[in-house]
Amino acid sequence: MTMNYQQQSPQAIREAVRAGVITGPTAGYAMGYAQANLAILKKEHAFDFLLFAQRNPKACPILDVIEPGSVSPSRIAKNADIRTDIPKYRIYKHGELVEEVSDLKDYWSDDFVCFLIGCSFSFENALMNNDIDVRHISEGCNVPMFKTNIATEKAGIFEGPTVVSMRPIPEAEVVRAVQVTSRFPSVHGAPLHIGNPASIGIRDVTKPDFGDAVPIKDGEVPVFWACGVTPQAIAMHVKPDLMITHAPGHMFVTDVKDAFYGVL
Amino acid sequence: MTMNYQQQSPQAIREAVRAGVITGPTAGYAMGYAQANLAILKKEHAFDFLLFAQRNPKACPILDVIEPGSVSPSRIAKNADIRTDIPKYRIYKHGELVEEVSDLKDYWSDDFVCFLIGCSFSFENALMNNDIDVRHISEGCNVPMFKTNIATEKAGIFEGPTVVSMRPIPEAEVVRAVQVTSRFPSVHGAPLHIGNPASIGIRDVTKPDFGDAVPIKDGEVPVFWACGVTPQAIAMHVKPDLMITHAPGHMFVTDVKDAFYGVL
Repeated sequence: MTMNYQQQSPQAIREAVRAGVITGPTAGYAMGYAQANLAILKKEHAFDFLLFAQRNPKACPILDVIEPGSVSPSRIAKNADIRTDIPKYRIYKHGELVEEVSDLKDYWSDDFVCFLIGCSFSFENALMNNDIDVRHISEGCNVPMFKTNIATEKAGIFEGPTVVSMRPIPEAEVVRAVQVTSRFPSVHGAPLHIGNPASIGIRDVTKPDFGDAVPIKDGEVPVFWACGVTPQAIAMHVKPDLMITHAPGHMFVTDVKDAFYGVL
Repeated sequence: MTMNYQQQSPQAIREAVRAGVITGPTAGYAMGYAQANLAILKKEHAFDFLLFAQRNPKACPILDVIEPGSVSPSRIAKNADIRTDIPKYRIYKHGELVEEVSDLKDYWSDDFVCFLIGCSFSFENALMNNDIDVRHISEGCNVPMFKTNIATEKAGIFEGPTVVSMRPIPEAEVVRAVQVTSRFPSVHGAPLHIGNPASIGIRDVTKPDFGDAVPIKDGEVPVFWACGVTPQAIAMHVKPDLMITHAPGHMFVTDVKDAFYGVL
């Protein structure tokens, strides 16, 4: 990761994304500002999906919903365009990932509703401020993500498995990691699971379903948080005509400081 | 208030409501279990209202949304019927309160969507456990509620003023009251305002817009929390064809323990 991007403003990052200068994962960029996952659906599915998010707040904490037909998430980012300001998008048709694109100009429709969902990158700053290493940042790669056997709560047509992100935490820091992340329910909050990957249906913790593998050192415990990639697993499960998301790790950088989402 | 109802189960309270035995406010009933505000709208307004709730989580924290057309909030209350299990309902047509009824049998339509919204009664138990007097419970009346000049965040057709509930708190307990209620964002969470009523547009703190006045003693500060009656103020402002709510203070008693909603 270019260290430079850590210190830049959210608006500078979005401009670099729009210009095609940033094309990869955004972990650690504009440090201190919240990043967001994206899910786009047609208006006919918007109520069901918003209810799905409400019923699964750990996996899908809503940061903002863009007014139907608009492209501007103006409540959380100034001068942004949701069609261009994410490095990589995924197009799902009938549950199949058919294409990855760098903007949505060929796909945009006025009956889209865009959901911006909290991202665990936001609590990583809080972990690091507590001297807890965030492995994928220190390794300079994407966070490892896994499909689990934890079912989401169904709403309308939407149902399927919960996706989690994993961070190895030293045994002595696990309690602190729970405390620190519990303060941030809008960005996935407390862990879903601590320890044995098999208990939540993960066969091999070295082979993530999304993102990159990271080493787990002696004396470290894998800790799992609900992940905003869950809607992509849902898309594969429910198979709506069309669903558009960000590519895992390639997030929308907002103007809202992480600290703003702390509940206490 | 009959002390007896404090100790009864949520299901016993709902049965007594359905049988017409309980017809008044439910503050303190089934102590330890969450109570809920109600807002019913036609399906065509359901997405806008759910988004409104998402954007105004202090006033409208969603506990559950009943599947369109169903009458059973089965995720938070067993064997309940939303048409009969609230002591008093209000029917708003074009923004006018046209009738108060004890059940919805004459009004029910299969295209209704029912929203159950967290109620500040739920954090009152936590306040009392901290030896903070909850005045309207010790006085045996309904909580005082006021329209404010704090605008809600608009979503679709929904906009208007925030309604707050007020509890007088001894100066020395105000910090503790903030801490205790911050733990419960699903039931309105931390106060919206502490102190001078005029700062939020309340002219006379002895004349509530809904509920009953309570005495503020020497050395006490009025503390204001966002209130689930806000949708009724919104109904008066937006004037949808039809909106049905509970009557203020006359709540739906759920099977979920207050403690369950604590975030930490």
